[in-house]
Amino acid sequence: MSPKMSADAFNAFLERNFPQVSGEFEVIDLYDMGARTRLIVKDKHLRPGGTVSGPTLFGLADLAMYAAILGMVGPKALAVTTNCSIDFMRKPEATTNLIGECRLHKLGRVLAVGDVLIFPEGSDKAVARASLTYSLPPAGSAADIDA
Amino acid sequence: MSPKMSADAFNAFLERNFPQVSGEFEVIDLYDMGARTRLIVKDKHLRPGGTVSGPTLFGLADLAMYAAILGMVGPKALAVTTNCSIDFMRKPEATTNLIGECRLHKLGRVLAVGDVLIFPEGSDKAVARASLTYSLPPAGSAADIDA
Amino acid sequence: MSPKMSADAFNAFLERNFPQVSGEFEVIDLYDMGARTRLIVKDKHLRPGGTVSGPTLFGLADLAMYAAILGMVGPKALAVTTNCSIDFMRKPEATTNLIGECRLHKLGRVLAVGDVLIFPEGSDKAVARASLTYSLPPAGSAADIDA
Amino acid sequence: MSPKMSADAFNAFLERNFPQVSGEFEVIDLYDMGARTRLIVKDKHLRPGGTVSGPTLFGLADLAMYAAILGMVGPKALAVTTNCSIDFMRKPEATTNLIGECRLHKLGRVLAVGDVLIFPEGSDKAVARASLTYSLPPAGSAADIDA
Repeated sequence: MSPKMSADAFNAFLERNFPQVSGEFEVIDLYDMGARTRLIVKDKHLRPGGTVSGPTLFGLADLAMYAAILGMVGPKALAVTTNCSIDFMRKPEATTNLIGECRLHKLGRVLAVGDVLIFPEGSDKAVARASLTYSLPPAGSAADIDA
Repeated sequence: MSPKMSADAFNAFLERNFPQVSGEFEVIDLYDMGARTRLIVKDKHLRPGGTVSGPTLFGLADLAMYAAILGMVGPKALAVTTNCSIDFMRKPEATTNLIGECRLHKLGRVLAVGDVLIFPEGSDKAVARASLTYSLPPAGSAADIDA
Repeated sequence: MSPKMSADAFNAFLERNFPQVSGEFEVIDLYDMGARTRLIVKDKHLRPGGTVSGPTLFGLADLAMYAAILGMVGPKALAVTTNCSIDFMRKPEATTNLIGECRLHKLGRVLAVGDVLIFPEGSDKAVARASLTYSLPPAGSAADIDA
Repeated sequence: MSPKMSADAFNAFLERNFPQVSGEFEVIDLYDMGARTRLIVKDKHLRPGGTVSGPTLFGLADLAMYAAILGMVGPKALAVTTNCSIDFMRKPEATTNLIGECRLHKLGRVLAVGDVLIFPEGSDKAVARASLTYSLPPAGSAADIDA
């Protein structure tokens, strides 16, 4: 199945709806059940010792999953993260942008499940891996995440 | 066992070593195998709809775990997050600070394992729960997280 | 809120519906948003070195969560595990039964989230901790877990 | 890097050391940083509705990871599971054996991290995905998992 959004359309959607993170994150490619994204490393992402912070890596994994889902279902759906399990495996260098590659394993009526690998751009040695679950509320309803 | 650091000592340590996040996060209390911490919600933590972002909640969980560990082992240890599994359960309001409570279940020679619950200050309804594993490298050695 | 099932009612339900595990697992107590369960350790649960196997600990965590949910919603609901993150912290002895204590953090329309701590009976030193998510399909529908 | 054990050598090791599960699980192939394994579905693995139980899927994921690690480091190492995060995505049929494919992302001095996908044999639709962390104690020492 081919995606319902292009990378350009997703990036425009991101800029409109999430101005706080647009400029840091961008989608490189959306494809069938997957997405390739980039974090443009900035000073505010860094930690002592010249490494990228854990919350920043989490944010990249989350964005890659969100992009992969919206690529498949289009920009109208509400989709919220319900779980993320992330492993930090190597210290990323502060001087290299990071690539987040998402592969969806399931895109159900109610839940989506996928994996994300995070690499320094130009390397094949993953610095982190994550699995995420998103809740996909039916059109017209609120997400289950509200109380 | 009583903690080796006070909340004040931890906050001073945080300000010295992590100036990027000091002012956002603070430790309220350190006790035997646990820590109580606060996120002071600011504009940069927010997402559309007036909620606090996932990476911010992740950051609070991570800080609460880090505080609980350093409370027990003192400020000299290197300690790095190796895994975090986090569940997002309810949408936090943008107008209320968040409390992160960590309970350590294990503090071994090499690994520490703990849980964190995140509540809006003054509420007992958790918005997120997380479990984290830290790697505790022996004195004088580098962490296992290096390549 | 008081539970809709007693421990005895749950154990009878387990024996009727899951004869494979009844006799190994039993519920000790069901209470508001929680359950206390027991694994009766048998030879088939053991691994070399006289310890209880990982899949057995996983099974106990899963049962404790299932009991806590059915305690709150009654025996008629379909409920399926969608995620479990489990940490193995200490080696359980083969000679002691294990207690699994579940605390539900969220019981929504679609998802339930809870934590389980596993202790040797009579000890307060947890051998494992787990968090689980269950999908709660609406009455009359099939679970989202089908293809 | 080529593996230090063949699939046959691993299966013989399994039969010697884990007689409880040998006959249920087998390694099909060991390769660089990965393993392909099979669960031979038996009555005792089943649950009502003709599906394979969660603990059984967990056991297959755990075995695939263990095989991938021992393939790389040889049969002499002690290696214990410290964390597993598993997502159940579709109901496996009781009538089809299951394949567990492990890919190691990190094999450090102290920790190994990998992913496992579980498929019905002959299908490419994953029924479950898991990520696991193993603790790799240094030669001659006991694992960190002891109290």
